Amino acid sequence: MARPSTREQIIAAAVDTLHRKGFNGTSVQDITEAAQVPKGSFYNHFESKELLAVEALERYWQRVLDGLSGLGDEKTPAVDRLRRYFQYLNEVTRQGDYQTGCMIGNMSAEMPDQSRPVRERLAVLLAAWSRAIESCVKEAQADGALRRDMDARTIAAFLLNSWEGAMMRAKVDKDATALTAFEIVAFGTLLT
Amino acid sequence: MARPSTREQIIAAAVDTLHRKGFNGTSVQDITEAAQVPKGSFYNHFESKELLAVEALERYWQRVLDGLSGLGDEKTPAVDRLRRYFQYLNEVTRQGDYQTGCMIGNMSAEMPDQSRPVRERLAVLLAAWSRAIESCVKEAQADGALRRDMDARTIAAFLLNSWEGAMMRAKVDKDATALTAFEIVAFGTLLT
Repeated sequence: MARPSTREQIIAAAVDTLHRKGFNGTSVQDITEAAQVPKGSFYNHFESKELLAVEALERYWQRVLDGLSGLGDEKTPAVDRLRRYFQYLNEVTRQGDYQTGCMIGNMSAEMPDQSRPVRERLAVLLAAWSRAIESCVKEAQADGALRRDMDARTIAAFLLNSWEGAMMRAKVDKDATALTAFEIVAFGTLLT
Repeated sequence: MARPSTREQIIAAAVDTLHRKGFNGTSVQDITEAAQVPKGSFYNHFESKELLAVEALERYWQRVLDGLSGLGDEKTPAVDRLRRYFQYLNEVTRQGDYQTGCMIGNMSAEMPDQSRPVRERLAVLLAAWSRAIESCVKEAQADGALRRDMDARTIAAFLLNSWEGAMMRAKVDKDATALTAFEIVAFGTLLT
């Protein structure tokens, strides 16, 4: 296998470090040390930590997309796909001992008023994430499994944002209570 | 009026600065500059930025408590108090142009794995916040205005966490969409 390029090593290290420590909690040196590349090489590849953060978000988003792939599996009823998707997210969180949380959520709390490029990227990613959920909500509504008195777009945004909020609380409490409350109330009230 | 003590000036400046810029985005110097006190005076009053953050959270919590006072107003039906409470939080956010967000939410995203004292304080404050909402949910359930097939504690935690998630999204999108979706779905599905 080809050796990953310095640029690649920096991006991979940035995803991990920014996810764990946040943008302001991470220095360029933290990233180059984690990437095991000379500190001086950073600015050959990236203009700023801010623009690297945008690329790291994009990379993290690829993982989110992998997780989202199950939402399109047409052999399973849409409402089950939807529930299993959030159960899967919660299971990942549980297995990670409620550490680090969602990188997109963390950056959404920390960065919108500090960096326009990061905020704009977050808005695009969250919109795409909402849309993926929305298609599945629409199908579940068409199946009659999910209530139809609210539009799919509103429900999808609500589910994603509520899950992000539950994840944040789980990080504080270091237990599953918030994630369980999300599953119970969100699905208990939306199912027909 | 007596001149505020240096300690007081530092705490007030810390609430504002930590709220806007986060823990890692704020230096001790940022705080002492905002407080207009000599940098050297900081450690006469606080052992660390971390322990000051705990005090700043406590101070911020007093504002949350002020907002919560309406939840106890027994002249208004409990379900209306509950809705108005979240409408009030959303209105405050809107008036602040979706900047800064909730300091408790921001710290919950940033700090749980970086500071045990901050995490423990957040857990206590979020539990108290949930409990205040829970009493009102219980009353609304007793009135028959809110569904009773889920316990008040679970509903209350869900409402608070979902609102925090919506707030985070509103900061990214810089509009009311997420807050409106929260009001529509959370209340639309929980009301009987």
